[in-house]
Amino acid sequence: MAKSSFEYVKTFELDDTLLPNSWIVVRLDGKCFHKFADDHNFKKPNDIRALRLMNYSAYSVLKEFNELLLAYGQSDEYSFIFKKDCNLYKRRAAKLLTIVNSKFTSSYVFYWRKFFGDEELKYPPTFDGRLVLYPSQENLIDYLKWRQADVHINNLYNTTFWALVLKGNLTPSQAEKRLSGTLSADKNEILFKEFGENYNNEPEIFKRGTLLTRKCIIDEESKKSVKIIADVHDDMLKNNFWKDFSVHLMKPK
Amino acid sequence: MAKSSFEYVKTFELDDTLLPNSWIVVRLDGKCFHKFADDHNFKKPNDIRALRLMNYSAYSVLKEFNELLLAYGQSDEYSFIFKKDCNLYKRRAAKLLTIVNSKFTSSYVFYWRKFFGDEELKYPPTFDGRLVLYPSQENLIDYLKWRQADVHINNLYNTTFWALVLKGNLTPSQAEKRLSGTLSADKNEILFKEFGENYNNEPEIFKRGTLLTRKCIIDEESKKSVKIIADVHDDMLKNNFWKDFSVHLMKPK
Amino acid sequence: MAKSSFEYVKTFELDDTLLPNSWIVVRLDGKCFHKFADDHNFKKPNDIRALRLMNYSAYSVLKEFNELLLAYGQSDEYSFIFKKDCNLYKRRAAKLLTIVNSKFTSSYVFYWRKFFGDEELKYPPTFDGRLVLYPSQENLIDYLKWRQADVHINNLYNTTFWALVLKGNLTPSQAEKRLSGTLSADKNEILFKEFGENYNNEPEIFKRGTLLTRKCIIDEESKKSVKIIADVHDDMLKNNFWKDFSVHLMKPK
Amino acid sequence: MAKSSFEYVKTFELDDTLLPNSWIVVRLDGKCFHKFADDHNFKKPNDIRALRLMNYSAYSVLKEFNELLLAYGQSDEYSFIFKKDCNLYKRRAAKLLTIVNSKFTSSYVFYWRKFFGDEELKYPPTFDGRLVLYPSQENLIDYLKWRQADVHINNLYNTTFWALVLKGNLTPSQAEKRLSGTLSADKNEILFKEFGENYNNEPEIFKRGTLLTRKCIIDEESKKSVKIIADVHDDMLKNNFWKDFSVHLMKPK
Repeated sequence: MAKSSFEYVKTFELDDTLLPNSWIVVRLDGKCFHKFADDHNFKKPNDIRALRLMNYSAYSVLKEFNELLLAYGQSDEYSFIFKKDCNLYKRRAAKLLTIVNSKFTSSYVFYWRKFFGDEELKYPPTFDGRLVLYPSQENLIDYLKWRQADVHINNLYNTTFWALVLKGNLTPSQAEKRLSGTLSADKNEILFKEFGENYNNEPEIFKRGTLLTRKCIIDEESKKSVKIIADVHDDMLKNNFWKDFSVHLMKPK
Repeated sequence: MAKSSFEYVKTFELDDTLLPNSWIVVRLDGKCFHKFADDHNFKKPNDIRALRLMNYSAYSVLKEFNELLLAYGQSDEYSFIFKKDCNLYKRRAAKLLTIVNSKFTSSYVFYWRKFFGDEELKYPPTFDGRLVLYPSQENLIDYLKWRQADVHINNLYNTTFWALVLKGNLTPSQAEKRLSGTLSADKNEILFKEFGENYNNEPEIFKRGTLLTRKCIIDEESKKSVKIIADVHDDMLKNNFWKDFSVHLMKPK
Repeated sequence: MAKSSFEYVKTFELDDTLLPNSWIVVRLDGKCFHKFADDHNFKKPNDIRALRLMNYSAYSVLKEFNELLLAYGQSDEYSFIFKKDCNLYKRRAAKLLTIVNSKFTSSYVFYWRKFFGDEELKYPPTFDGRLVLYPSQENLIDYLKWRQADVHINNLYNTTFWALVLKGNLTPSQAEKRLSGTLSADKNEILFKEFGENYNNEPEIFKRGTLLTRKCIIDEESKKSVKIIADVHDDMLKNNFWKDFSVHLMKPK
Repeated sequence: MAKSSFEYVKTFELDDTLLPNSWIVVRLDGKCFHKFADDHNFKKPNDIRALRLMNYSAYSVLKEFNELLLAYGQSDEYSFIFKKDCNLYKRRAAKLLTIVNSKFTSSYVFYWRKFFGDEELKYPPTFDGRLVLYPSQENLIDYLKWRQADVHINNLYNTTFWALVLKGNLTPSQAEKRLSGTLSADKNEILFKEFGENYNNEPEIFKRGTLLTRKCIIDEESKKSVKIIADVHDDMLKNNFWKDFSVHLMKPK
């Protein structure tokens, strides 16, 4: 079996090593998740079961790959950040992209029942992924701020939209028209005046998304230091957050 | 919420469009599947349940993405071939790589029970992926021959190895020693003389792997042409195979 | 001198090996050559000295790198085609791009006087370069047709434009206006009716550009086969040309 | 002339935009310059005419492209550093690589006579190029230190080697043998004891190479600030150098 006469095809696989000393971000997005959410009766505007399943799947990725520093998720997307000196798989792009993508996806299906109980998973979902490099800590922080600003904008819109539809009895297209051209302040006012809702009182996980980070805590009993993965729903747009937090970026572990 | 001041970070995501007019191969591999197979009591040297789950997951990928021409799998790996004029996601590498990777992975978990029944899935598995371009049909065919030659070599080895261990009562390291330096003919002889097994009679799916292709067949009742995905376990190393088959490569549908 | 403590910076140089089995095209373009042409009194619409210098510089590149199959030039641009199995510098993109770029540029300056005589070179010119892969011979031929169609369109326009300006006494902007929206037939007619010029009689080198190819000829005296580089000004848009010629693409030497 | 039917070949030219916010280094190397040096009677171990021509060519590149921050050269190589926020040609790699490569090469030929006088240039030289990104200032400084450490090692070796050959009457291979396994201290001693040469007294340009930087100086007469390009032969391996200098890296002009 002249395997060797075909082996030349291996040389067509080109080297995709990533630039050293830069942060590696892998972002996953649910494919066709509008339909997926409808097919699985996701609550509007936010389904806490779905968010917790996303978070738990991300947690399972972080637990597996130590070179991952943190992860940030919202809605049907999740970003994973590798340490800037990460050398896992010699920084080969396709490897890093697919192991995160695959582990997240399989966890999503595997743990579905844990969060959705009797709501059965009807078909296997798909997440796509992309990989981006950030050369400086400032760029990386701006990336996370960008994703969190996105949560805010989308969630305020969705919260108001679904209040108009579910409580205000508008049709979706009427609600869309009503919100067209409105600013944040307008939406806050609609929520408050028409539905008695204070957007500020919405759960932090809806307004801010979820940041998963590694922490060391002292175990009460054993008095020993234990590494854990913690979920945080803080305001990352405030610079104060990063003053306290940036140590995590620089000195992982 | 000054989303726009962070949005510059989007420009760090570089264009990864693939060269046009060339075959796109995505190959997935089970990560740590030696351990995964042990943890889930896979039969040695081949577990038909596992192979069928692999095939069914690949089938579910082909059903979802029409631009996929065919797929070829063996053991814990599967290769997916996009048509050379594929324009799905504008040929962006990361998108093509991850949607195949993710859909395959989620199908593997989702359909586990269908093939493994009471053998429970203990944890979410991971598949890594890579993407390779082939500019000519000859290169692509050589790629598939390369993977099939690999099946032959590995399966003959494994079949003999496990015969020595399971029926010959050798320890794994004794079996390894025994096989060291042996040629195909030697292994065939060991199987035949010592265990009365004719390797040629082994199931084709073990010896050749599985090729999934799209076919048009005539439905008996309706007399209409129907598109199906068929599984084939032929000898792709024979050039005759490609004479009949290459039309599939050139005129996908 | 602890050289080794800095040597890690070498790892930042990433592998840029090109896909095997595909044609490598390097195209050079004169940078700011409008100004360069004016500064050096290039004749309008074509300066035969400049074209010959371009051709001679390209010839000097072909003479140096045997893996170059052919080259095609027009105006201030030149395309160089490496054999599809070229393995020079292990197909590293930056190397192939820069050696062609540098050798061409240095030849252009070095041989200037040979073609321009007393017209002195006033400053060092710059050529930029790009590199493109073509997976099939059809794509490569279409590339060359594309560049030659470009010569035709530009040269017919320029020939008519400069006839209107130099012989018809129009200002450049009047000539531009006059030609706006005209078809090829219109320009041919202007040339013929107003200036008695038959565009077909223009020199082939102006109308078709120059293709440099390798040929074997029989030396009259020694009766031995000799390899030469020949310049051709044929119509590459006719398929007949490629019937005779394509042997050059497939069996270089 | 159906230009449009061939124009699809343009899509094969892939986007090669470089990662933003990182230093772009283009390094050029003389191709076969051992032979080139012999063919043009370069003095051993250093030919000041050749070094000055290299420096002047690099100067002519810096003068043309404002986004170039500095350049560092030694022997037959030169590195050019673009500002990290450089947006010239939208950071397209091939463009940046080739314009530097081409302008340098053409300047080398154009200004040859200015430095070599009657020593005629016999044929057009070739420089190859490569492009590397550095995400941090520390990496960039280490890159420059790496190149300067290289000068030191090579120049001390060459100075001793040629002393042994030219003054010590050893053959090249005897000199090579003599130096095999020697440390810096040994070479310094050979120079001093056998040839009365103190390596420290060698010209700085030989020992340190040349750094070209942009400076603002006050014109004596006009009292106005003028931007110039200055050449420096300092010890870049000392951290003090970078304390004073790094402002140049951060606040380009």
